[in-house]
Amino acid sequence: MSHTVRNKVSLLARVGRMRGQVEALERALQAEKGCAEIMQQIAAVRGAANGLMTEVIEEHVRTHVASAAITSNATRTRGADELIDIVRAYLR
Amino acid sequence: MSHTVRNKVSLLARVGRMRGQVEALERALQAEKGCAEIMQQIAAVRGAANGLMTEVIEEHVRTHVASAAITSNATRTRGADELIDIVRAYLR
Amino acid sequence: MSHTVRNKVSLLARVGRMRGQVEALERALQAEKGCAEIMQQIAAVRGAANGLMTEVIEEHVRTHVASAAITSNATRTRGADELIDIVRAYLR
Amino acid sequence: MSHTVRNKVSLLARVGRMRGQVEALERALQAEKGCAEIMQQIAAVRGAANGLMTEVIEEHVRTHVASAAITSNATRTRGADELIDIVRAYLR
Repeated sequence: MSHTVRNKVSLLARVGRMRGQVEALERALQAEKGCAEIMQQIAAVRGAANGLMTEVIEEHVRTHVASAAITSNATRTRGADELIDIVRAYLR
Repeated sequence: MSHTVRNKVSLLARVGRMRGQVEALERALQAEKGCAEIMQQIAAVRGAANGLMTEVIEEHVRTHVASAAITSNATRTRGADELIDIVRAYLR
Repeated sequence: MSHTVRNKVSLLARVGRMRGQVEALERALQAEKGCAEIMQQIAAVRGAANGLMTEVIEEHVRTHVASAAITSNATRTRGADELIDIVRAYLR
Repeated sequence: MSHTVRNKVSLLARVGRMRGQVEALERALQAEKGCAEIMQQIAAVRGAANGLMTEVIEEHVRTHVASAAITSNATRTRGADELIDIVRAYLR
């Protein structure tokens, strides 16, 4: 079972909040709110994306790279490769 | 008229795409997709937030700070203050 | 006079501290310190770069875009263009 | 042997280049260069910090979390904890 399944409830709650933030931003644009407010809402969405990424990375490391339950070196290496790919793309 | 009004159509299209990305992420979690795919989708949302922020900042600078149409120094200074506040928070 | 000249002392002090951080990181690598410590030192350098960028952007906005002392619209527009270029590159 | 030792030469070369960038920035400020140039140089330092962090994280994952040579679960967990701490701080 994938860690994203195991933590499905927690992650879905986070994504639901993020969708709520994006919808609030959409309404603020429709309502022609001031741009200081718009910029703060965009910053909140980015903050939510960073928080979600942190949670997924943590679970990925614990479940697919560091877990004592992994018995195959190839599996562990694949988990490490996936992690490194996303870190490279995300920190660019 | 605020710059967020003037560019309302373009910004709403961007936010609509971002909402679509968040909804796709939600579906991927529901469907128990692999975490490499989940992480890429989160990275895409953050990229969309950065792109939107860049567009809003650009319009803010042109309309509320640099515009030749601004006749009051206080107005220009307020636009600059708002910009600096968001840059401080966003680059922290 | 450029704002980077006006705030030269403050900015040079910041860059001096950043150089000190990079030199400390170099010594930590030479001394074969643990990687948790190394990673924290790299994070500190990035934080210093972000803080410096924030200060330079703030001064740029006040001096080259929003200043009441600017009498030419072309000058103000050039200041805005430079700002937008760096925001685009930095938030990518 | 720590991975930061094993890759000491490569990492020291990177840090040396970063120090060179910070020194160039210092000279640019001393020489009262324009702020567009200053801002580009700051962005280069941040890019170097991100590149260095990526390299250290990659080596940390391979050596202290995913390596087949690790025989103790506690050691692997400690490596994972260190990684997660830095990811949390860096993506905040």
